[in-house]
Amino acid sequence: MKQKTLQDILPLIQKRDANWEKAARNHIAQLTMPYWALGRVLDLAVDVVSIQKTLKPSTSKKSIFVMASDHGIVDQGVSAYPKAVTAQMIGNFLVGGAAINVLGKLSGAEVYVVDMGVDADLTSLSAKKNFIQKKISHGTKDFSKVMAMSREEAMASIEVGINLALEHAPHTDIFATGDMGIGNTTASAAIAACITKHPVEVLVGRGTGINDQRLAHKTNVIINALALHSPDSKDPLDILAKVGGFEIGALTGLILGASAMGKMIMVDGYISTAAALLAKEFSPDCINYMELSHSSAERGHELMCEHLGLKPLLNLNMRLGEGTGAALAFNLVEAASRIMKEMATFSEAAISEKS
Amino acid sequence: MKQKTLQDILPLIQKRDANWEKAARNHIAQLTMPYWALGRVLDLAVDVVSIQKTLKPSTSKKSIFVMASDHGIVDQGVSAYPKAVTAQMIGNFLVGGAAINVLGKLSGAEVYVVDMGVDADLTSLSAKKNFIQKKISHGTKDFSKVMAMSREEAMASIEVGINLALEHAPHTDIFATGDMGIGNTTASAAIAACITKHPVEVLVGRGTGINDQRLAHKTNVIINALALHSPDSKDPLDILAKVGGFEIGALTGLILGASAMGKMIMVDGYISTAAALLAKEFSPDCINYMELSHSSAERGHELMCEHLGLKPLLNLNMRLGEGTGAALAFNLVEAASRIMKEMATFSEAAISEKS
Repeated sequence: MKQKTLQDILPLIQKRDANWEKAARNHIAQLTMPYWALGRVLDLAVDVVSIQKTLKPSTSKKSIFVMASDHGIVDQGVSAYPKAVTAQMIGNFLVGGAAINVLGKLSGAEVYVVDMGVDADLTSLSAKKNFIQKKISHGTKDFSKVMAMSREEAMASIEVGINLALEHAPHTDIFATGDMGIGNTTASAAIAACITKHPVEVLVGRGTGINDQRLAHKTNVIINALALHSPDSKDPLDILAKVGGFEIGALTGLILGASAMGKMIMVDGYISTAAALLAKEFSPDCINYMELSHSSAERGHELMCEHLGLKPLLNLNMRLGEGTGAALAFNLVEAASRIMKEMATFSEAAISEKS
Repeated sequence: MKQKTLQDILPLIQKRDANWEKAARNHIAQLTMPYWALGRVLDLAVDVVSIQKTLKPSTSKKSIFVMASDHGIVDQGVSAYPKAVTAQMIGNFLVGGAAINVLGKLSGAEVYVVDMGVDADLTSLSAKKNFIQKKISHGTKDFSKVMAMSREEAMASIEVGINLALEHAPHTDIFATGDMGIGNTTASAAIAACITKHPVEVLVGRGTGINDQRLAHKTNVIINALALHSPDSKDPLDILAKVGGFEIGALTGLILGASAMGKMIMVDGYISTAAALLAKEFSPDCINYMELSHSSAERGHELMCEHLGLKPLLNLNMRLGEGTGAALAFNLVEAASRIMKEMATFSEAAISEKS
């Protein structure tokens, strides 16, 4: 398949279809329950109908992309876990031992693992099912000192995500984002600070579980890096290149690519939401294709969601990433599509209507 | 099977098993993720391990009981829908057209529909699969004038629920509560006022969707009925008899019976939570077996949950009843049990631990 560029696909991202939204609302009003009594499940039904342009939406084919990469900023001691864990977890994903394997299987999703820039030689894994090798470099550079990546690498990471979405769209009803990368909450907090304009202090959290002292250090590392690079808040590629990560670029591209293909995309937690912030800067209309799966326990996530203007579906005090929140939220979309397809109307069931 | 009484089963309800709770926490700490990174899914895992007393809990066999009944208080104009809808919805349940049929099927649950006191002759339905005839009377009496039911009928309704739990426990891993009954938010608000001691005004909501004027009237009907009957807040049977409903009694019994059999019970929304308040008055330890599935959009539900000391799992602005919230929350329990059984430990996956 010929690879597409960001510029190729941006014009394909459409506005919400008002006619299909209206058709969904009319159908739901006829179903045998008090008006809108299933709340957000019905909001989801309207979203999926508006995206798929049918009152009988399909949501059984689900694809989760776990984008993995390493981060040079880990050298500054911002994480509780060593960098080696990124590659170790790839191994765990590929033998089915991680949380996303368990929850992906429960939701009936395919889980793809993409090496975007893991700082280890993973060629021995290249034959593994659902492992996709797209390594741009052995991790980003330490953005406390230099740009995390070049502008060209940033665009390349986005275009990996775009083309994965295009390639997998024919056999996918809903996409989901997932991430793995020791250090990536630091990059995500920096991106969120550039775009939301909230102070770093309220956007940065404990990641994999750092203590107060290391949290203060992590905060300072980000503040100093933003002062060093002065990313242009109107240029998402500049932000990604200066303080981002290869997996975050790929997630940004996956969101844009799914939107361009007219597919719903379930956004996981903190890292994925940072990618969603970048995606919205490239194309405000991609919001129409996104659902925020869950409210992360990581500090700052709520402000990021508010900036997107979207409300997460679940709030379970989770902060794992990998796509785990998205996998759990798939059940709600499945519920929404089945309600549209399987429930009786008042007239079909001969139920008296409201007086 | 010989029918059991409330007094037979109350002594069987056990305290939480501290050893199994500790074993669950120890196992979870070894799984390949940062500490407690799946938040409430892991809290659920601890609950189900403590109840089932195994690190490999079973949650695939799920039984939802939709208890249905009519309410004399509907004569006072407290509902947006006519009483006939209760029987009409039974018909809809039995042909699979209602929301609970769709969501029950999605969760892999059996949905049982129990006629506890529908004000219609349903004998023609008696051969239908999963329909259970336990009618105590053709609806309760109008509790704005007289007691809703006799003390004996109240006990009989509870014992129906108890014996259904006992009978179905051998082929059920998790139970769930559901309800159908035009007028039952009025009875539930009255019960909640007796037990939580909050003012009726903050506990009563719009039910199936009444307007401001009818809401004010519904509130006054409840306030006047409580003044008329003065239910004894320390005597849950007195509360149920004076202002309750046959389906609420059956739900109370189902919760107590499931607890006595050592089964988790997923409590649905507003009506089911009123039954949970009664159940806790009969046996404080039944709390150990309950999960609150979702936060209902019906006003007052949050205060009822607080009184139980439990936090709902989902918050989706739902207010349908039927067991729909419980059916959706089953997915989280299923996730919890699979995480316990299928995830790798740090040592199995050779992952570096936190520094």
